[in-house]
Amino acid sequence: MKTKLNIGLFGFGVVGEGLYHVLKNSRTVDATIKKVCIKHPDKKRNVSENFYTTDANEIINDEDINLVVELIDNADEAYHIVKASLLKGKSVVSGNKKMLAEHLEELIEIQKKHNVSLLYDASACGSIPVIRNLEEYYDNDLLKSITGILNGSSNFILTKIFNEGGDYDSALKLAQDLGFAESNPTFDVEGYDSMFKLIIITLHAFGTLVKPEDIFNCGIPNLAPCDIQYAKEKGLKIKLVAQVTKLDNGSFTMFVMPKLVSPDEYIYSVENEYNGVIIEGEYYEKQFMFGKGAGAFPTASSVLSDITARAHNYKYEYKKHTLFTPPTYTTDTEVKIYLRYRDSLAFSHFEFENITEKYSSKDYSYVIGTIKLSSLQKVKYLLPKLDVFIAAV
Amino acid sequence: MKTKLNIGLFGFGVVGEGLYHVLKNSRTVDATIKKVCIKHPDKKRNVSENFYTTDANEIINDEDINLVVELIDNADEAYHIVKASLLKGKSVVSGNKKMLAEHLEELIEIQKKHNVSLLYDASACGSIPVIRNLEEYYDNDLLKSITGILNGSSNFILTKIFNEGGDYDSALKLAQDLGFAESNPTFDVEGYDSMFKLIIITLHAFGTLVKPEDIFNCGIPNLAPCDIQYAKEKGLKIKLVAQVTKLDNGSFTMFVMPKLVSPDEYIYSVENEYNGVIIEGEYYEKQFMFGKGAGAFPTASSVLSDITARAHNYKYEYKKHTLFTPPTYTTDTEVKIYLRYRDSLAFSHFEFENITEKYSSKDYSYVIGTIKLSSLQKVKYLLPKLDVFIAAV
Repeated sequence: MKTKLNIGLFGFGVVGEGLYHVLKNSRTVDATIKKVCIKHPDKKRNVSENFYTTDANEIINDEDINLVVELIDNADEAYHIVKASLLKGKSVVSGNKKMLAEHLEELIEIQKKHNVSLLYDASACGSIPVIRNLEEYYDNDLLKSITGILNGSSNFILTKIFNEGGDYDSALKLAQDLGFAESNPTFDVEGYDSMFKLIIITLHAFGTLVKPEDIFNCGIPNLAPCDIQYAKEKGLKIKLVAQVTKLDNGSFTMFVMPKLVSPDEYIYSVENEYNGVIIEGEYYEKQFMFGKGAGAFPTASSVLSDITARAHNYKYEYKKHTLFTPPTYTTDTEVKIYLRYRDSLAFSHFEFENITEKYSSKDYSYVIGTIKLSSLQKVKYLLPKLDVFIAAV
Repeated sequence: MKTKLNIGLFGFGVVGEGLYHVLKNSRTVDATIKKVCIKHPDKKRNVSENFYTTDANEIINDEDINLVVELIDNADEAYHIVKASLLKGKSVVSGNKKMLAEHLEELIEIQKKHNVSLLYDASACGSIPVIRNLEEYYDNDLLKSITGILNGSSNFILTKIFNEGGDYDSALKLAQDLGFAESNPTFDVEGYDSMFKLIIITLHAFGTLVKPEDIFNCGIPNLAPCDIQYAKEKGLKIKLVAQVTKLDNGSFTMFVMPKLVSPDEYIYSVENEYNGVIIEGEYYEKQFMFGKGAGAFPTASSVLSDITARAHNYKYEYKKHTLFTPPTYTTDTEVKIYLRYRDSLAFSHFEFENITEKYSSKDYSYVIGTIKLSSLQKVKYLLPKLDVFIAAV
């Protein structure tokens, strides 16, 4: 059975505009954009249709509209729009990972109660169909780990540094000039974007919803020439990696941090704005999915896939969340890290379990050793203020 | 809604045995193997359960059994088992690509009429979830091409030749010794296995079912040292590639043949028994999926995914096949090939449209040029008998 979709769209940037053109020409999806809610009515638009409004309620209260597509940046506004739409019995497609990671529990409940569908494959990994694959395909008992490069901006910056030389600041500026990084890049380069995506992925992989504040994430702004030199001398690259892993005791752990990556790892060759995800399982060893993770067109394409799925009345069933007792999340596990620092005061914040290598010079020092993730988690908010660089080894 | 599955299993080799153990320990799938139909009752089995039979009807006529899992090699026997089971109202999981490629039209009809489900993600690409992704995720209007290394045996042989030296015969023998190739390797090395998989993939990508005899396939047994040398001098590898491509006129074409592959192509790095699939679309450019394509465990894992899907009452909907007019298949299109030959009689079988390079020596000659796929198709059955080697350029 197929449903004719009347879409109320929030946001009309490049993604929204692309979506408009695709839907107009599509033979395969019976969907029309009826109204578009925009912020700036005076902005000149390429599409001159009589569907613009600045009043969200014109969409939310329109009984003809049966699908809301939310493509705005602001997570708080997105939350109110999505919640109000679901409560009014409208299905929703959203790509806002921060909003989803923070509010999924409530939104899933509302979705169930009102018998509507909230779809968000577009929120994680751009064009790579990770969420629906985890939901439909991979049995959680067989899943061992998921490792991904989930953020296009930071991967673009790291690629420039490692392939073309230069330091973090100049690579960041290039990324901003080319439109691959925001003017305020914190969300991307400090690992928050990756972390929100990892939360969503983990819910569909293992059935457990973990709170953002319970996860250790750190990023790449402190990457210094000495760290780059260290990696290059060892024949390694540094990538910003998000990882969730089942532990031997049945619980699981997760983090987002830079990682020293060797050429025999699949993610070594994921470059520029691309994303790559490795799904490791009991029987199939490793599978690797790879595709454009950022940009208007890849995003529009995955939003379109969500819309198509909705046209066929698709819903996430959250099987792993509802049918079984999901595994417990823990940070009580050790990770092996490279820690570069410049003074012993900074170093004193880290409680290593075991140190296997030490180096010091007048400019900088580093250690390699194991540390509890729970102990790293304690200094998470301090890290951006310290002149230290951390990478998983 | 979940269905408790009572499985009747055909075939109890390594895959079947692996499946038995996994199901026994699974918390996530409520499925039990009730009966196993085997060919050789006197063979010593590792599993001593009282469920063996040599009579297929004991499974087909057992009203308690609601899912038949077919894991036998023989395509004709598989066809009869699958058809009889569907007609008796049982759902079926099958991995037999040859049988499926040849009989899908009829089996889909029976499946619909009897309101049962025939699932076969296990049939193409081992552990890579290609079929269900195409079915659920990629809108056919946006799909431009699918290119894959779909056969693990021939890829293992080509990897050995290009990475470790040696000729075709010694690499084939090694593959056979290690269990990566059958004692009769024709099915794999002449491109039939890839072609049957490509037929199944194409049905789920574009909605059109193409007959095996209408598709050009050729393989690698004629690969000679001069061909290997040619590729190596140009910095290329030779891979056995299956490809389906939309043409500008809206129709599509497909083939299986060796291809000269450069290092900047994703499939260049797909080695040994791995499979890799590139899905190219209008908006997301290229996506790449990569995983183990052969072996007992990857196959068991994708059979298990089909079983899990069935436990959740999943069916392929064949949306692209039923909701729209699928595109037409054509071989009236040109491909650029490298053709190596040794005598002008062999060469005379090929009607080139245009030749751009020629080389000849006393030992061998080659040309590079464009030729109609329909013209290659005419000499398909003659090729294994000629001392020529063809590769797409």
